[in-house]
Amino acid sequence: MALKLAGMADKIYAGIRHAPIVSPHGHCDPAWFATDSAFADPAALLVIPDHYVFRMLYSQGVPLERLGIGVDADSRDAREIFRLFAAHWHLFLGTPSQLWIEYVLRETLGCDMPLGPQTADAIYDHIDAWLAAPDNRPRALFDRFGIEVLATTDAALDPLDHHAAIAGSAWQGKVIPTFRPDALLDPNTPRWADEVRALGAMTDIDTSTFDGFLTALRIRRAAFKALGATATDHAIEDPKTVWLDAPGDVFSALLRGDLAQADAFHGHMLVEMAHMSLEDGLVMQLHAGSRRNTNHTLFDQFGADKGADIPIAVDWVRGLEPLLNRVGNDPRLTLILFTLDETTYARELAPMAGHWPCLRIGPPWWFHDSAAGIARYLDQVVETAGYHNLAGFNDDTRAFLSIPARHDLWRRAVALHLDTQMQRGYFDRTTADRLAGVLATDLARTTYRLD
Amino acid sequence: MALKLAGMADKIYAGIRHAPIVSPHGHCDPAWFATDSAFADPAALLVIPDHYVFRMLYSQGVPLERLGIGVDADSRDAREIFRLFAAHWHLFLGTPSQLWIEYVLRETLGCDMPLGPQTADAIYDHIDAWLAAPDNRPRALFDRFGIEVLATTDAALDPLDHHAAIAGSAWQGKVIPTFRPDALLDPNTPRWADEVRALGAMTDIDTSTFDGFLTALRIRRAAFKALGATATDHAIEDPKTVWLDAPGDVFSALLRGDLAQADAFHGHMLVEMAHMSLEDGLVMQLHAGSRRNTNHTLFDQFGADKGADIPIAVDWVRGLEPLLNRVGNDPRLTLILFTLDETTYARELAPMAGHWPCLRIGPPWWFHDSAAGIARYLDQVVETAGYHNLAGFNDDTRAFLSIPARHDLWRRAVALHLDTQMQRGYFDRTTADRLAGVLATDLARTTYRLD
Amino acid sequence: MALKLAGMADKIYAGIRHAPIVSPHGHCDPAWFATDSAFADPAALLVIPDHYVFRMLYSQGVPLERLGIGVDADSRDAREIFRLFAAHWHLFLGTPSQLWIEYVLRETLGCDMPLGPQTADAIYDHIDAWLAAPDNRPRALFDRFGIEVLATTDAALDPLDHHAAIAGSAWQGKVIPTFRPDALLDPNTPRWADEVRALGAMTDIDTSTFDGFLTALRIRRAAFKALGATATDHAIEDPKTVWLDAPGDVFSALLRGDLAQADAFHGHMLVEMAHMSLEDGLVMQLHAGSRRNTNHTLFDQFGADKGADIPIAVDWVRGLEPLLNRVGNDPRLTLILFTLDETTYARELAPMAGHWPCLRIGPPWWFHDSAAGIARYLDQVVETAGYHNLAGFNDDTRAFLSIPARHDLWRRAVALHLDTQMQRGYFDRTTADRLAGVLATDLARTTYRLD
Repeated sequence: MALKLAGMADKIYAGIRHAPIVSPHGHCDPAWFATDSAFADPAALLVIPDHYVFRMLYSQGVPLERLGIGVDADSRDAREIFRLFAAHWHLFLGTPSQLWIEYVLRETLGCDMPLGPQTADAIYDHIDAWLAAPDNRPRALFDRFGIEVLATTDAALDPLDHHAAIAGSAWQGKVIPTFRPDALLDPNTPRWADEVRALGAMTDIDTSTFDGFLTALRIRRAAFKALGATATDHAIEDPKTVWLDAPGDVFSALLRGDLAQADAFHGHMLVEMAHMSLEDGLVMQLHAGSRRNTNHTLFDQFGADKGADIPIAVDWVRGLEPLLNRVGNDPRLTLILFTLDETTYARELAPMAGHWPCLRIGPPWWFHDSAAGIARYLDQVVETAGYHNLAGFNDDTRAFLSIPARHDLWRRAVALHLDTQMQRGYFDRTTADRLAGVLATDLARTTYRLD
Repeated sequence: MALKLAGMADKIYAGIRHAPIVSPHGHCDPAWFATDSAFADPAALLVIPDHYVFRMLYSQGVPLERLGIGVDADSRDAREIFRLFAAHWHLFLGTPSQLWIEYVLRETLGCDMPLGPQTADAIYDHIDAWLAAPDNRPRALFDRFGIEVLATTDAALDPLDHHAAIAGSAWQGKVIPTFRPDALLDPNTPRWADEVRALGAMTDIDTSTFDGFLTALRIRRAAFKALGATATDHAIEDPKTVWLDAPGDVFSALLRGDLAQADAFHGHMLVEMAHMSLEDGLVMQLHAGSRRNTNHTLFDQFGADKGADIPIAVDWVRGLEPLLNRVGNDPRLTLILFTLDETTYARELAPMAGHWPCLRIGPPWWFHDSAAGIARYLDQVVETAGYHNLAGFNDDTRAFLSIPARHDLWRRAVALHLDTQMQRGYFDRTTADRLAGVLATDLARTTYRLD
Repeated sequence: MALKLAGMADKIYAGIRHAPIVSPHGHCDPAWFATDSAFADPAALLVIPDHYVFRMLYSQGVPLERLGIGVDADSRDAREIFRLFAAHWHLFLGTPSQLWIEYVLRETLGCDMPLGPQTADAIYDHIDAWLAAPDNRPRALFDRFGIEVLATTDAALDPLDHHAAIAGSAWQGKVIPTFRPDALLDPNTPRWADEVRALGAMTDIDTSTFDGFLTALRIRRAAFKALGATATDHAIEDPKTVWLDAPGDVFSALLRGDLAQADAFHGHMLVEMAHMSLEDGLVMQLHAGSRRNTNHTLFDQFGADKGADIPIAVDWVRGLEPLLNRVGNDPRLTLILFTLDETTYARELAPMAGHWPCLRIGPPWWFHDSAAGIARYLDQVVETAGYHNLAGFNDDTRAFLSIPARHDLWRRAVALHLDTQMQRGYFDRTTADRLAGVLATDLARTTYRLD
């Protein structure tokens, strides 16, 4: 089932249900749209790429190998994986994964059978047949989903071949890259010095000096922008910005392997990025507070993004002071903050975004992109920041089929919120309908400069 | 519109709607009531003194100068400022400012036009005419609002001339001062040593010794008390109390400019204040967790209180241990705690206030003085602290006209809460009506010793 | 009154209302069931052992002595204590104590009079008569309450005589111990070295070496297991685990009185306990974040557990990393986490329990075992952890009569939650009924290995 609506919420939802999908942040693979190949099989479609799914099964004792993680595509038994998933479907009751996957089955795959151990094979066969149809290839789906624009997230050194291929194709779909230079900005990253050298090679700039490093970064930002990028994206565990007096000296020390000031350099580079955003107009996104790869055994065996990234408490106020006091009063800058620490919604982010011209609050992120998570978010940010200091919605997914499902959940939750606000007496139906459009599409378009 | 009520909530509200206004903490200017001059113009009434209003406009790129901030009264175009405010009215949808300002327009100013760019001039003219009427002067409004008592907040060295003038006048309105010695207690304050010397001059005591300093503080507390004060008020970023072994040595070092122990001294002085409260019976208020003036550029240009004070996480438990272990078991002390970190409601403040005889939990403060903020507060404090360990309501405003609006919002939110409690089965209508009175007026009177 | 239900919530509740009580964690005295003596008097039954009750009265200025705390049983006036409690009954409005005590009076004691100063004597007499009836002795009550199993909490060096007596009796009631070795694991505990020596004496093992210490701990765990224990329990203020390279050296230093590494040793011993749980199958419980005995005067006069234990913020993510990275991927381990910091529900515990095979989230604990506390808990944990990573309910009480009252409140709150989930569209009545049973009894049975 889907998040249920009644009365005015149903009517508000009706007004935004079929609005275009604006997807300014996510992790789809641009190769899908460059090559337009069919997706492989039901397990590869719904289980293997979905960390919400496999982390839940792992938490109940299912080894990742049995779900095909870390197993060659050739050695997997896709049907067995799907059966295992279906046998554990009850674990997802009450979770957003339940709502997303039920939406995908019902609305996208046209499958009416309830998921469970008895129906696993029949549903598997249904999806398998669906995948074979030519109009279920990535570009056709993109068009059918009503996606106005889809931003991917790409390493700074990504050659962007797929994006170039899409841009050069006859297909009209708008798929744009996002500049994500984490591996170059955080000297704690393994092989950071190699990345810096590779940046030099790619841009034909001497990146052994700090000035060269900055110049090369500017060149890469311009390359992204040339292919349609409107934003950069930055991840950091602790959002602590710094303005170093002598960043060049620190850069040299880091290149020599002295990591004493690695965190400070990372914090400094965020401020440099903000300065560059003022120059080139790219919107800056900051995703903070996820402690990555907390399960070392799993990381060693399977690599990153295997469900062991866990949120921690963060301090946005003191952490961003150095950055904001250099560039925060300039309304030409847009800086979107994403938190996994919900305690910062009302305490820090809403008061900050309700003051600094550059700040916008990102949508409820990751574990909080859920019915109750969205309700808590709106309950805690709107009173202090209003609606117009929010950044709209991001689906932030690497599961392409879940995009319409996620936007649908957001739109339903927004309708429920606006109905409650009407019941509280804040505004009438006309305003609620206008704000529904603002939250469903307009804020995403304007904040990310996609209009 | 106002926060909507239905069924029992409406009936509970009816019982407290017209109760007297008890305002034990706020920032009105006593000069208004001493001189009883008319307010200047609609912008000076509703925009320029309201940091909730101008911070929101600033967050969307409106420079403070265009709102008349930091501009001489003579050089302002009040009508243009009001137009700019009205043009951005949509930013306030869903915020308490919307509810407050709509209440003021409707109930106090008698203006039925909805605020917006089209109505800006007409509303401006309406308010301008209203301001000219003699029965809309401060004293008449005070009486018409049904204010039983209004406490202002006054620096320790304030000569209290306006309060003396009010007390000496024929007008019966009760306006009392509150002793706020931050500038004397926090050696990090610019010009702290000058303040200490000024304290000496004012009290004719040698404040170059710690004993003299304490004596002079006692003299000022007595002067406030003589003019009706029942409370002191203290602001601190991090509520960390300390009991120094040799405070006199630290005091001397601080006067010599050695600030190493400035924070510890500040923490120590809070304990001294609690001791003095035991002597003279003044209720002690502690407002913690606001990081002041985080926007340095704005502070340099416009000064304090310009919307850049941002909440931070605090630790009340370990922070107050030194103070509580000296005086906390004495039920003659009343110490009211105000937090901007909502996570401390259920985790720290309610358990603490449900144990220590001296503690009372202050009402939802600042950004949390809002419909959803009040709901979260009551949801999180009542179960552990009950109703009788709360301090009732404070409007905490420097916008005089908003006082009835703020008390009205609190009363409506209280009625909604009590109705929900009835629906949950906690008590019947008779008890709900009694608790409505407790929350609307009684707790404020008894906690602040105003009865 | 009790937490009110309507519509589907009432029907869901009806299905679990009379389910057996599974009580896997609490603080009842096993002597009650070994000796089966009558409880003493109404004050000893409802006031003196209930820290929720006497802390609230203390917070409003009632000295603990007047409630019989720290007073010899012979010197107490039970009726006067009960009158004092009844005179302050209004303080408990809106608290879980209200609901629990009203349930006990109505359902267990069969008393229809509303508690208050007018009825104090009549209710006292009613309870006094009730206590004298032979079928109101502990074993009869245990059976009448429908308790399937009751776990007590027992110091590691407890001889377990009462448990042996119960096991050796003809009575069929299942009362099992829980292994709680805090005094042996935390070298900051007063008389820690004495405890270590007493452990040696009790087990006939040389506990002056670390290996001997571990062996002796294993022997005591086995003794608990032999009497039915299925779990251990550990309390720590800051849940910081550690894996020491040379724990034996640290142990020796600690025995010599060098406490420098006391906290690290405590953190290390938690990991040792997890290793032993893998060996012997005892479920491990970790209760963290309570700062004990914050009121030093009260502690010196009355001892521990007098209402001055206050929650603090904790960091589960970094704190548990050392433990989890040694044993957390082994699904044979069950580790149940209890928090008093609700901010960790959605930020830390749900993401962690939704990943690590060993983890389960304990029920809302202590101050949060309340109607709104349970609602916040389910709202914040289910979306990320699902229902099957929860540990079911614990009453955690030392007030035997409150056990049915507490389980009843949990069951009502669960019914309300599941009804809301149905209204949101997550599942239908059949699934809601199944989950009601899961939350009321099944999870407690399976998590604690009681099935």
